Amino acid sequence: MKKSTSPQLVIVGSIGIDTIETPREKRVEILGGSVSYACAAASFFVKTGMVGVVGTDFPPEHRALWEKMGIDLAGLQTAEGKTFRWSGIYEANMDNRRTLLTELNVFERFTPELPEAYRDAPFLFLGNIAPELQLHVLEQVRSPEFVLIDTMDLWINIAREKLVEVVGKCDMLTLNESEARLFTGAHSLMDAAETLLAMGPEFVLIKKGAAGSMLFSKNGIFLLHAFPLADFKDPTGAGDTFAGGLMGALAESGRTDEKSIRRAMLYGSVTAAFGVEEFSLERLATIDRQQIEARADTLKSMCRME
Amino acid sequence: MKKSTSPQLVIVGSIGIDTIETPREKRVEILGGSVSYACAAASFFVKTGMVGVVGTDFPPEHRALWEKMGIDLAGLQTAEGKTFRWSGIYEANMDNRRTLLTELNVFERFTPELPEAYRDAPFLFLGNIAPELQLHVLEQVRSPEFVLIDTMDLWINIAREKLVEVVGKCDMLTLNESEARLFTGAHSLMDAAETLLAMGPEFVLIKKGAAGSMLFSKNGIFLLHAFPLADFKDPTGAGDTFAGGLMGALAESGRTDEKSIRRAMLYGSVTAAFGVEEFSLERLATIDRQQIEARADTLKSMCRME
Repeated sequence: MKKSTSPQLVIVGSIGIDTIETPREKRVEILGGSVSYACAAASFFVKTGMVGVVGTDFPPEHRALWEKMGIDLAGLQTAEGKTFRWSGIYEANMDNRRTLLTELNVFERFTPELPEAYRDAPFLFLGNIAPELQLHVLEQVRSPEFVLIDTMDLWINIAREKLVEVVGKCDMLTLNESEARLFTGAHSLMDAAETLLAMGPEFVLIKKGAAGSMLFSKNGIFLLHAFPLADFKDPTGAGDTFAGGLMGALAESGRTDEKSIRRAMLYGSVTAAFGVEEFSLERLATIDRQQIEARADTLKSMCRME
Repeated sequence: MKKSTSPQLVIVGSIGIDTIETPREKRVEILGGSVSYACAAASFFVKTGMVGVVGTDFPPEHRALWEKMGIDLAGLQTAEGKTFRWSGIYEANMDNRRTLLTELNVFERFTPELPEAYRDAPFLFLGNIAPELQLHVLEQVRSPEFVLIDTMDLWINIAREKLVEVVGKCDMLTLNESEARLFTGAHSLMDAAETLLAMGPEFVLIKKGAAGSMLFSKNGIFLLHAFPLADFKDPTGAGDTFAGGLMGALAESGRTDEKSIRRAMLYGSVTAAFGVEEFSLERLATIDRQQIEARADTLKSMCRME
């Protein structure tokens, strides 16, 4: 039994102040970062502990929002200096984005240290940061039941060996289509998944944005649709929200079998579909579990074959 | 009761001699055309009558192949002159293709006339030809239970009014994503579907290639995945194969309710996934119903949420 003060899920990742331009709107200095999106999504399901770093310039209202969402901030560090900044622009169809600016700031000297209460967490999500830091976090958790790892093209390109090492110690790897191809050199996602499974994880989850996601394991393939939206405002963080919702729902179930993972993916998908309806955490901050359940039921009925 | 000589399903469309170039292969003067793909797919399920035209140059082995597949050719005309020719090239990712050549030839003076035995067909698929000809075919069928209509950007651009007229007389409209946007001016597929449903058909089926398909009706939305393939050779005719398989399976069921249409879409999807594995009808000519059933079961299990 865990102490009631220990989070069931711990997530590490980046915290950023983002400036984002879409074809219709530009938003300056809003709350972003993989761990912010992931913890917000997971917090609908279980007590979630955040591991990350902000600078002394970090606006107190962002911290207040996380607290209001019930996120455990014992693992959040504040370091002398400026918070990580990121700026990007989306092209007309919102399918592609270009990074305009990346300022690491306090993130450059970040060493994630877990509070004692986090070290017995049964579920761990290593969000997108340097593989070396992911490994450092993994080594601090005593006996995790299930570890999900995310990554990005940057680490595949510059820290491939370390990434392969840490992926081999995780239960599930998530990445998007182009990252899966980059990591493996395979064009077919099925070939890519086979290569990634051979690195060690039992599950490989490939995210395809609005085209849904694919789960690969020794049991075969699971195909999940994205929840169809008539409109959305900002896809930034959708993958983190999806993974966070997934891990929250999985941690809540307390199970790690394929059936439970399929069900958790459904929750991750609908949570992400809420997230992209507004910038930052603006939409996630206004919804409740009941709305997530309703959307999950709708998505299930949309996929019912008979 | 229909006479045993009447087809349960009649399909009208184009018959072409295609020259197709993909990044890996070029194939010259192979059998193509919407009605060829659609009838081949449908023939796994029901007796299917083909309505189309070929020239006097049409190779007898193509006709022999259709006969071997059990397609009823009573509605096939042979006209003095050359068969319709089409040539296209696929870009590196196979997502986009460019038309290099279109020679209408005998297709230019084509007036589809249905044999008497076709006029009591309960299921009708108006494949992609001029809306005027689609209407002419529709008027010859006495009391069809279910009519599916396909179209393309060309007709939306040059024969919009006639197209809207014939769509209004059909039960179901199928088109791809970009055609749905072109036809309605809406960017969101959900908005596009709403506009298309308002034209009269009870069902609107939007094809998204490897990303699957979406069925819209007053009952809501049904989302179907494409069968995932590690590799494929030629996507030409995939939409026609999908629609043909769908109509074949629906005609076989003898039903036209949403549940039956969802099930028929599954068969259309897996039949199309066979079709793209080779050029022309080469793969469809080698498979049997049992292989289709096996792939349908696999796709169902890949989509099972719990």
